[in-house]
Amino acid sequence: MAYDQSNVFAKILRGEMPCVRLCESDTTLAMMDIMPQSKGHVLVLPKEAVETFYELSENGAFECMKTVKRVALALRTVLNPEGLFIGQFNGAAAGQTVPHLHFHVIPRWADQPLKLHAREMADTAQLEALAARIRSAL
Amino acid sequence: MAYDQSNVFAKILRGEMPCVRLCESDTTLAMMDIMPQSKGHVLVLPKEAVETFYELSENGAFECMKTVKRVALALRTVLNPEGLFIGQFNGAAAGQTVPHLHFHVIPRWADQPLKLHAREMADTAQLEALAARIRSAL
Repeated sequence: MAYDQSNVFAKILRGEMPCVRLCESDTTLAMMDIMPQSKGHVLVLPKEAVETFYELSENGAFECMKTVKRVALALRTVLNPEGLFIGQFNGAAAGQTVPHLHFHVIPRWADQPLKLHAREMADTAQLEALAARIRSAL
Repeated sequence: MAYDQSNVFAKILRGEMPCVRLCESDTTLAMMDIMPQSKGHVLVLPKEAVETFYELSENGAFECMKTVKRVALALRTVLNPEGLFIGQFNGAAAGQTVPHLHFHVIPRWADQPLKLHAREMADTAQLEALAARIRSAL
């Protein structure tokens, strides 16, 4: 399927929409999920215009992994979660809601079930404050 | 936490236990999950003795991504699923059941909810037959 240049993440990557940014390189962007499934839910995007993992270049996958690891270590420092989920959904049948490839990095605690995906907005001030703590640990 | 050399995947990597192998390189192994959450559920393991993503080397992550992509494309060829889930669970609180890092690659269909993780054994003959089809598409 042709890449949809009007999707939300494409707009964020072009600077046409805001995001709660954690870090950015020539190849990737990490930002807070504004509808988090748990505290510290981060999204890592390649800058490549690809919808699914099938199309992602080897270098794009490598750069995403480097950023995911950087984020994972920072989340561990800041939140010390009991577990960490890393997931990447391709196609609506797998739970993909935005047609630009992204990795979810989601801290887990045994007594806290995940919230439903993309349902409830986070409080912006709280999200910004948490992002500042994560950025300082990157 | 120290790596547990007696875990099931360590035994498989040392050749002390069988698996339904798809492909193997110096750095990774791909095999069928014997308790699949959907048809075509594959596991990709680095050969590095690491329990979680926090410890995985950059090169290990890169090699895993290359194998995951190879498997993903073969699954698409053989099963043409509506979606594809790629997931990596760190810690029991995130759903990790074997303490050797692994990526799940799980074909998805909208009308088929995932089976529970690590609950029900697949029929071995059916799993071997499916593995043969996937291997031929790698």
